[in-house]
Order: sequence, then C-alpha cells, then structure tokens
Amino acid sequence: MPGQAMPARIEIVEVSPRDGLQNEARPVSTAEKLALIAQMVEAGARRIEATSFVNPARVPQMADAEAVMAALKGRYPQVSFSGLVLNARGAERAVAAGCQELTYVVVASESFSLRNQGRGIAETLAGWSEVGRIAAAAGLRRNVLIAAAFGCPFEGRVDGARVLELASQAAAAGADEIGLADTIGVGTPGQVGELFAALHQRLPGMPLRAHFHDTRNTGIANAVAALAGGAQILDASAGGIGGCPFAPRATGNIATEDLVYTLDGMGVRSGLDGRAIAALDPWLAEILGHPVPGKLGKAGWFDGSPPA
Amino acid sequence: MPGQAMPARIEIVEVSPRDGLQNEARPVSTAEKLALIAQMVEAGARRIEATSFVNPARVPQMADAEAVMAALKGRYPQVSFSGLVLNARGAERAVAAGCQELTYVVVASESFSLRNQGRGIAETLAGWSEVGRIAAAAGLRRNVLIAAAFGCPFEGRVDGARVLELASQAAAAGADEIGLADTIGVGTPGQVGELFAALHQRLPGMPLRAHFHDTRNTGIANAVAALAGGAQILDASAGGIGGCPFAPRATGNIATEDLVYTLDGMGVRSGLDGRAIAALDPWLAEILGHPVPGKLGKAGWFDGSPPA
Repeated sequence: MPGQAMPARIEIVEVSPRDGLQNEARPVSTAEKLALIAQMVEAGARRIEATSFVNPARVPQMADAEAVMAALKGRYPQVSFSGLVLNARGAERAVAAGCQELTYVVVASESFSLRNQGRGIAETLAGWSEVGRIAAAAGLRRNVLIAAAFGCPFEGRVDGARVLELASQAAAAGADEIGLADTIGVGTPGQVGELFAALHQRLPGMPLRAHFHDTRNTGIANAVAALAGGAQILDASAGGIGGCPFAPRATGNIATEDLVYTLDGMGVRSGLDGRAIAALDPWLAEILGHPVPGKLGKAGWFDGSPPA
Repeated sequence: MPGQAMPARIEIVEVSPRDGLQNEARPVSTAEKLALIAQMVEAGARRIEATSFVNPARVPQMADAEAVMAALKGRYPQVSFSGLVLNARGAERAVAAGCQELTYVVVASESFSLRNQGRGIAETLAGWSEVGRIAAAAGLRRNVLIAAAFGCPFEGRVDGARVLELASQAAAAGADEIGLADTIGVGTPGQVGELFAALHQRLPGMPLRAHFHDTRNTGIANAVAALAGGAQILDASAGGIGGCPFAPRATGNIATEDLVYTLDGMGVRSGLDGRAIAALDPWLAEILGHPVPGKLGKAGWFDGSPPA
C-alpha cells in the first residue's frame, strides 16, 4: 500500500441529498430535502451535492431539482452546492438553477456506460467538452466523476490504466477536480491506494476526490487508503443512506458520521461535527421508512475522554 | 500511519464459536456449535477458538465447553482449537478437555478489569504466571489477549505505553503469542497501526494478533492497519456474529467473509474460502434467530472476473 502520510485536513462532499435519496422507494418531499441540507450545513458541511439534473422519468426522486436549488438561493453563502449532470441539457439546468458546482459522470466500463448512460465511453467523454464549457462560461466548478472505476458488474475488474487515461482526457478538456467512484462497492484498499497514487502522479496538482459505497464493508478502509494515496476530498452520506429497499445488493455511500469518527481519531480535520450527524439517524429513518446503516448513531461517540 | 508492506500470508483465528456466540440470547446447542465448526474447517479454518472455560453461571452459552471439545477430539487433526480462560481453574479444564491452545485475557484498564474479571490488572497479570505454567506443562500454545487495548468504556482512551508494558510483562512470564483486542470497538486506524508497530518493535519476533469489533465501522480499516503495523494473526467471526440482541451497542467481531474479501483483494493469503463462509449466513441467521451483519453474504462475491 502507498504509505503517504494522512493529510491534516480534507474536504467532505455531503452527497445524501442526491446519491443518498435517488434510489429510495418512499418519495422524499422538497421540504424534507431542505431540512436535511439545513441540518448538514448546521453540522459543518460546506460542500453539498444537492440534487441531479437528469430525466425525472428515470429518477423521480430528483424531479424537484429546480425547486430545491431555488429554496437554497442566497440562504447558505458559506456552502457550495453541486448538481450532478449527464449532458448539456442537465448542465444548462444546473447553471440556471444557481448551482456553484457541476459534477459530470464518465463511466469507466463500456458495458456499464451503455446500460447506465445509454451511450459509450467515447461519446460521454466528447460530451464533457461541451458540458465543461457551459460550466466554465457560467463560473461553476467543474467536477468529473469516473464511475465504476474499480469494478463493473458486467466486465469485472476495471483496468487502472484505462481509468488513468480517462482521467487525463477529462482533465485535458478542462476540469477543476477529478473523482474516482466505486459505484458497486467492490474496491479493496490496496487497489484504491495504488490507483489514487498513480492518478496523483499523472495529474499533479489536480484535486482528487473519492466516492465509496460500503457494499462489501470496505468503504472506510478504502477511504483511508484513498487519502494515503493522495485524495483530499471524500464523498459521504449522512446515515450511510443510499441503499435501495427493492435491490438488497445496492447499498449506500459510506456514512458521513462513521467517516468523521475515523478521521477525528486519525487527527484528520474535516470541519464536520460527527456527533451532530449521528444524531440525525432517527429522523432519517423516519423520513425514509427504514433504519439507516451508519453505525455511530447506534454505537455512540467515543472521543477518548472518560464518560461524564 | 506506519506504512509497512502487507504480509503475503496471515493467519485468521475463527472466533465465532466463542466470542460470536457467548452473548447470544437464544441457546445454541452443542450440535449446532459442532456444525458451525465443521463448516468453518471445511472453509479452510485452521485455528478456531472453540469455547471458553469460564463460570457457566455467568456465561451459560459456554456451559458445554467440555462436550464441545470431547466431540472434536481426533476429528480435525489439521486444526488447532483454543479455549479462552480467565484463571488456573479454567486452564486446568482447557488442558483436560484437550485444547491445543489456551487464550488468557488481561484487561488494559483497571476499572474495566475490576468489572469484567472481578480483579485488577496486577492480580490478573500475576495469575498469568500460573496459567502459563499449566499450559506450558501440558504443551498448549499460550496466547495472551490484552482486552480494551484501545479504549475503555469507563476510562476513555487507554494509554498505549501501558498496553506495551502489559504486553512486555505477559511475554516475560512466557507467551507464544500476544494479541491486542479492541473490545468495545473504538479504535481508529492510525492508533491501531502505531500501537502494533510499537509492539512489534518492543517484542521483535513475537507473533502479534489483533481482535476487532466493528461497532463503529472501523473494523476492516483497523485490521488493515494492524497488518501494516506488523500483526500477522487476525481474529474474525463468520457472519460478523457477536452482537447481543439485548444490548444494541454491543456488536460483533469483524466478519470473516468480509475480512477475507478484503485480504483476497490485497493479495494477502489466509487459506480461507470467503465465498463458502458468506454462504453460511442464512444458516447462521436461522440458528441465532436474527440476521447477521456480515456484508458479503448479501452483496455477493466479486473476484474481478466478468460474471459468468
């Protein structure tokens, strides 16, 4: 494993309003989404993936993207809100809605790209030029997330060299941040640390972001490995939400509170209050209609002090 | 974090028959324990903590210790079975029952030691001399496990220097293996890696063992950190069992199948078949009367090959 020292401070992108909710069966109202965002801002979140600008027929839970952003306008000047987009139409909506950032997805495996985005890798990469231009013209931060970067449900393990090549091409077309996502939760720490270290070497100076699902219990270990490999930005979701009740194999992002617990213990500052986030679990369980997988809400915090 | 390379091969001690079952509410029969052990041997387990020789009034689930060992006698010559003991009486029972190993527990915090063992650290350490002699005279492997090595529910964080001192004293009194246990699941990877690295330096050549509970989702990350710090032996429990249905804050050991998944991905051989262990989940859930927390049983294995 790459043995780089842990960074003293990292950024966490709170993705619960988007990745956390998009597959939930029970409709979550715009008011509930705004309450989630308000509580995460209160707990210290400064980058939040608020929604996605995609086809509402395919992702009904995100149909209120414009309404969410309209309600946020001017309310939290300390926070940078991003919208996930898949094409120029989505980028234009994100700009019009007032996002500060835009995240574009390139899938690293051809089969998964065809099934998930309805087009292949080359076409998706070509699309980034246009989307990136729209974002740049409007002054939005341009993030590219390479999905299925560690494994694909149809092709198996994804070649790291291909991921590096995609990252280089996306960066060459203009990007302010490159992320690698373990979309199906198959990565292991050695692979993760090595790929981030190689990416860091390939694109020196580029802010690197990591996005993990805890499907196989490797999420926190992978997050630590990504930081050791040179990532400075981690996605996480309050309560670890993101599982789909109708697809028992789809599981959530790493839980923000569990990640913050780990980082606090390692002396890595994130600016987030893990205790406050863990305390949201009962409320999250109520709006979603099922318990949430994050562990700190059940276990209780431990900061090394004797209990009062 | 200490950046030592991962070992090429490690040992896993399967603790499900002891730590996994001891707090379960539903009585598990001797036959069911033997079926669990048989399946774990079949899946490649070569070191198994089969039972504990403690007061059956305090731990009713382990009241059949002698019966379990009697049934195992001569049956699996390839496997080394250990019994957990807390005193000379337990050691004599373990020897008489035919264990190949004995594991003695020293708690690293005075308050926890008094509450859990009914005596303080000094007295427990003094007890080890006698227990170690009994084990050595009978040719049993002598393992000392230092419990609450990373944190205590009554005293907070446990000083690493004290843990190192306890380990040195236990080793001086005669030990074939020293383990550190995160009994309440509070450790984080930096702390774990550093303490194992310091222990490795303090006791060069001593086989080091790590025992994690996944209470705060740090278990797999801690296991990886322990190996990087110099541990070569990891405890794990099939299905991640070990939670107590009446104490929602008590959670199980790291799941053997999740650990093996991580190790396989990192190229660290354990000799265990993680797929076979993950397949035991439905059976475990049936005998325990509740679902088990291990994730691979739900997620499905991923070895990098395209699915058939």
